[in-house]
Amino acid sequence: MSNPVRLIKIKEDIQADNDALAQGLRDELRQRRTFLINLMSSPGAGKTSLLLQTTAALKNSLRMAVIEADIDSTVDAQTIVSSGIEAVQLQTDGFCHLDVQMVRQGLASLDIDALDLIFIENVGNLVCPAEFDTGAELDVMILSVPEGDDKPLKYPLMFSKCDALIVNKIDYLETPLTNFSMDAMENRVRKLNPGIQIFPVSCRTGEGIREWVGWLAGKVAAEKV
Amino acid sequence: MSNPVRLIKIKEDIQADNDALAQGLRDELRQRRTFLINLMSSPGAGKTSLLLQTTAALKNSLRMAVIEADIDSTVDAQTIVSSGIEAVQLQTDGFCHLDVQMVRQGLASLDIDALDLIFIENVGNLVCPAEFDTGAELDVMILSVPEGDDKPLKYPLMFSKCDALIVNKIDYLETPLTNFSMDAMENRVRKLNPGIQIFPVSCRTGEGIREWVGWLAGKVAAEKV
Repeated sequence: MSNPVRLIKIKEDIQADNDALAQGLRDELRQRRTFLINLMSSPGAGKTSLLLQTTAALKNSLRMAVIEADIDSTVDAQTIVSSGIEAVQLQTDGFCHLDVQMVRQGLASLDIDALDLIFIENVGNLVCPAEFDTGAELDVMILSVPEGDDKPLKYPLMFSKCDALIVNKIDYLETPLTNFSMDAMENRVRKLNPGIQIFPVSCRTGEGIREWVGWLAGKVAAEKV
Repeated sequence: MSNPVRLIKIKEDIQADNDALAQGLRDELRQRRTFLINLMSSPGAGKTSLLLQTTAALKNSLRMAVIEADIDSTVDAQTIVSSGIEAVQLQTDGFCHLDVQMVRQGLASLDIDALDLIFIENVGNLVCPAEFDTGAELDVMILSVPEGDDKPLKYPLMFSKCDALIVNKIDYLETPLTNFSMDAMENRVRKLNPGIQIFPVSCRTGEGIREWVGWLAGKVAAEKV
């Protein structure tokens, strides 16, 4: 068939002075020597699982807390707290991402100066969170294997803005269930973001976690100097 | 550990007169005997795969077209067109959902009266698309097994508003990779939405597609009467 694809562009302006506020928060946290990291992904890609693995690996060396964001529910914060890590749950009441002012509401209930590393678990969404600078020092995203290797084509902004990409559920690669190509995915990501760090992991088996955690610990240590 | 979860609610008003416009579109399409269906899911849950299976099953009995929505790219519309089904791609340029006016832009390039069934493939997102009535007669969502059985807890509005839930990638249930419980998921969904139709399918193997397509064909036929 040769039906041409007709293309209609819908423009919409979604930004305010959030960027300036984000830079202000970043500067403040640098001065206070507290490292803020913003973790983003689709629903179910493994943000909470990654946080559990990461905080378990670092809990003897760093003082950490988690700001959880969800439309509703406190499921994720409960899970984090149960693991022995401090967590605050932001309920966005339908809002699909976090901006700096929401992050500040979370930070206000933490003792920032007593913490080395604070994770934001953003709302599960590859669209809106990419557009709002949270004030974090690092933006990290998770892509899970079952989502498919075409996602960089569909959500280019998210893949463009992140410092690191964690490819989770690599244990699925060994099954016939998925035709995910790590090479194809990586080529698509590198075109958007040549310098991005890519960490293939399985939060279920623990494979690859050490490389990711080592890199993160290095980033936090460098900021402390 | 007994760190209590601290809860902060962030209120935000995200709605306009979209609801009235949606009802207007729904009324118009009923009069014109064209059935509009809005398909939603996370990124990578299988919207395009489901559309390929569904249109293949119905193409001898119904005249169909697809309105694809994406932040960027025309990948999905290309796929649909390659299968012999008319498709129009809406590029939302960063916007994370479709509202009625965007849907109307897509409909404007279709010959509505020559079509029995039009699918909207909404932006891959479980948050914002749930909040905007598109004017469709039916809202259908896909949850894929690898996303996890806790998603109704995290995205309750989406599960509450849909007429049907397609649980895709059920072939993953036979592996040790996931601890997804169909019963747990279904219980969570039924609490939110007792009347929802649930169709377990695998778009890879074709399992369960017939039940879903049969139900959909019945809905379309009933509207034609």
